[in-house]
Amino acid sequence: MTRIRKASTREARQRLLGRNVSIAYNDPVKIVRGEMQYLYDDDGRRYLDAYNNVAHVGHCHPKVVGAGQQQMAVLNSNTRYLSDLIIRYAERLTATLPASLRVCFFVNSGSEANELAIRLARAHTKAREMIVLDHAYHGNTTTLIDLSPYKHDGPGGDGPPSWVHKVPLPDLYRGPYRAADPHAAEKYAQHVADSCRERLCGFIAESLPSVAGQIVLPDGYLEKVYNAVRTAGGVCIADEVQTGYGRLGTHFWGFEKYGVVPDIVVLGKPIGNGHPIGAVITSSEIAESFDNGMEFFSTFGGNNVSCAIGLKVLEVVQEEKLQSHALQVGEHLLEGLRGLKEKHEIIGDVRGSGLFVGAELVRNRDTLEPAGLEADRIVNRMREEGVLLGTDGPFHNVIKIRPPMPFSEADADLLLATLGRILSTDYAD
Amino acid sequence: MTRIRKASTREARQRLLGRNVSIAYNDPVKIVRGEMQYLYDDDGRRYLDAYNNVAHVGHCHPKVVGAGQQQMAVLNSNTRYLSDLIIRYAERLTATLPASLRVCFFVNSGSEANELAIRLARAHTKAREMIVLDHAYHGNTTTLIDLSPYKHDGPGGDGPPSWVHKVPLPDLYRGPYRAADPHAAEKYAQHVADSCRERLCGFIAESLPSVAGQIVLPDGYLEKVYNAVRTAGGVCIADEVQTGYGRLGTHFWGFEKYGVVPDIVVLGKPIGNGHPIGAVITSSEIAESFDNGMEFFSTFGGNNVSCAIGLKVLEVVQEEKLQSHALQVGEHLLEGLRGLKEKHEIIGDVRGSGLFVGAELVRNRDTLEPAGLEADRIVNRMREEGVLLGTDGPFHNVIKIRPPMPFSEADADLLLATLGRILSTDYAD
Repeated sequence: MTRIRKASTREARQRLLGRNVSIAYNDPVKIVRGEMQYLYDDDGRRYLDAYNNVAHVGHCHPKVVGAGQQQMAVLNSNTRYLSDLIIRYAERLTATLPASLRVCFFVNSGSEANELAIRLARAHTKAREMIVLDHAYHGNTTTLIDLSPYKHDGPGGDGPPSWVHKVPLPDLYRGPYRAADPHAAEKYAQHVADSCRERLCGFIAESLPSVAGQIVLPDGYLEKVYNAVRTAGGVCIADEVQTGYGRLGTHFWGFEKYGVVPDIVVLGKPIGNGHPIGAVITSSEIAESFDNGMEFFSTFGGNNVSCAIGLKVLEVVQEEKLQSHALQVGEHLLEGLRGLKEKHEIIGDVRGSGLFVGAELVRNRDTLEPAGLEADRIVNRMREEGVLLGTDGPFHNVIKIRPPMPFSEADADLLLATLGRILSTDYAD
Repeated sequence: MTRIRKASTREARQRLLGRNVSIAYNDPVKIVRGEMQYLYDDDGRRYLDAYNNVAHVGHCHPKVVGAGQQQMAVLNSNTRYLSDLIIRYAERLTATLPASLRVCFFVNSGSEANELAIRLARAHTKAREMIVLDHAYHGNTTTLIDLSPYKHDGPGGDGPPSWVHKVPLPDLYRGPYRAADPHAAEKYAQHVADSCRERLCGFIAESLPSVAGQIVLPDGYLEKVYNAVRTAGGVCIADEVQTGYGRLGTHFWGFEKYGVVPDIVVLGKPIGNGHPIGAVITSSEIAESFDNGMEFFSTFGGNNVSCAIGLKVLEVVQEEKLQSHALQVGEHLLEGLRGLKEKHEIIGDVRGSGLFVGAELVRNRDTLEPAGLEADRIVNRMREEGVLLGTDGPFHNVIKIRPPMPFSEADADLLLATLGRILSTDYAD
């Protein structure tokens, strides 16, 4: 009966939704309930969610749900009226950031936030040329696909426009300069310096590139890049959509890991715990340049319900000390994955920070031949075993782990044991 | 005390939010509660909201609030899992549309929806050139500002890019061809025909241009335009962000008023009653062209809470027969405004449909000299008297009336009496 219903949901979806809106897993999951780091399907089966970084403080976290429910019943209007909620949210948010980042804009998604960041950068520099990392993804609008090699160089893509300059992804495992090279960071940064040019608008990068394969940037890289970009008159944009809010464990923001201060910070996914919120925070100088006579208005951006939810998510992250929790559980997880790497040749690299982790699969540790099909098969096997994961990276061979932050050591152990069992059964060396 | 608090909210806002995020009214309102067509400020004062079309079925409509509250506590995840809610929503939505419009994409705002519409049109036509109406506004992203003369020709704007071709707004009151000209519709449409060219991607217009001044398109205009655009290989996009869901009274969708069927329909504002939702609905053919290998994913688009809310809003619109209510109250309102026009020279034109109405103010009915300052002053006086309105149009001289749909005849009478009193006192002829 349930099987039939699921099949009929799938059939209706094929008919009613765009077909390039893709579904996860060979046998898709019909999720009907969420609770912290767990999801439940239409058969009542529980899954450990090790993939949904959007539900940052946990699916249906009661405090966040309560804040949303309460505000929803009272008022949900826009920024053309005064409201204390948006002020309290902006105050609490900017308090977590370096002093130079003080002016907030609220929108409804990471894509809208990156779109706005580019507008701010252009208004400030009066220039247009942008430098991006290879394989980056910054959102689903026309301008952001232009800025996302993952999209414009991928299937259906038309390549980059003339104003987008791609530099190598500073990947110490697979890139042109690797971990053994003590000058790798400088060499990668030199590509950015070499791409700096007349009318440079800026540089944008995720603080730990995710779609590109959960890449931890080399020490010193971002500092050199920011210096070069600023010297050329450009601004530096940190896309923290996936890396902010303590996920990396060591720091609240990804850019702090590298000791740099961006000119514009872009927020999305986790800040609303699933509610559609994005935000851009910048300096007074850049905000002033943007205030050039053209009004900025987002119908829903900064509405009362979004602000009540956004504020509560931030409070919960801080009150529940989720950053230090992510550090502790993340270390445990990374250690376990390194243990699996010792035993299984297919795991070529284990990397990440806190609860933002990748395990790169290869067919050969010398040639680094990507094990993309294997990664896909393993993630589907994990789903059968009740653990939700995904793959990413240019070769789709990186298993991506970025669970809701309440994910515990016991959850990590379950993930590791399940993965170990599948590897031992299917990929015994 | 309250005054101080409001001042301090305003001061904090100046410091923490971008300053081109503007506030309505000379004496801004600090709204703390909403209930159907009424808003309440921090002094407990009630305002009649005659401006917020976003709260389509009424501020904090209990059924919509209930649907959101319930789903929020159960699950809020994304389209990579199967869900019945998105299917039920897509089914109910497409059932209101012509048979050719069957494939839905869900995003988080009208801007995101228009962005996606342009991507769909380009994927389908493999062309780039777009025709837009003068003074149009389609959203706040880079591409949409390129498509919005209201923005790119306004303060801080850089003019249109080479791929955007602007045609005259078919304004029968102030435009180059006026109501007295029996061939005005054809003449306006001819500008579109003349703008059709090689590599035409398409034409986009609001079904009743709003920012341009609440312009009702001339009979026959859109049909001729659509024919010309399609003959040139382009697609026709109806921006229904402000005009859909029965607001026009006579029809559920704005384009139906003109007897045309668009290739792509764009939805936003009212469909979530304040919750961030946007949607694009298109033909199977265009959806297939878009399915070219590039995945489309919106982290929040089509999430369970957005779909539960979106579905409930649509149900309420239909169950409460808000379209016929809008027709009835709108006729009453238009009649009252026409009565005021008889008495007050400053009202040059009254136009609209259902609860989407404009009153254009002029200093001279022959020269049509725009009374922009007067419109601003009247709207601020109305706000003092407890009625919330706005101004729009290229000269900011059109008083815009588009209340939540529960707005009653008694509310219309209050608005008319207040406006009449202000006009008699301040603009006695």
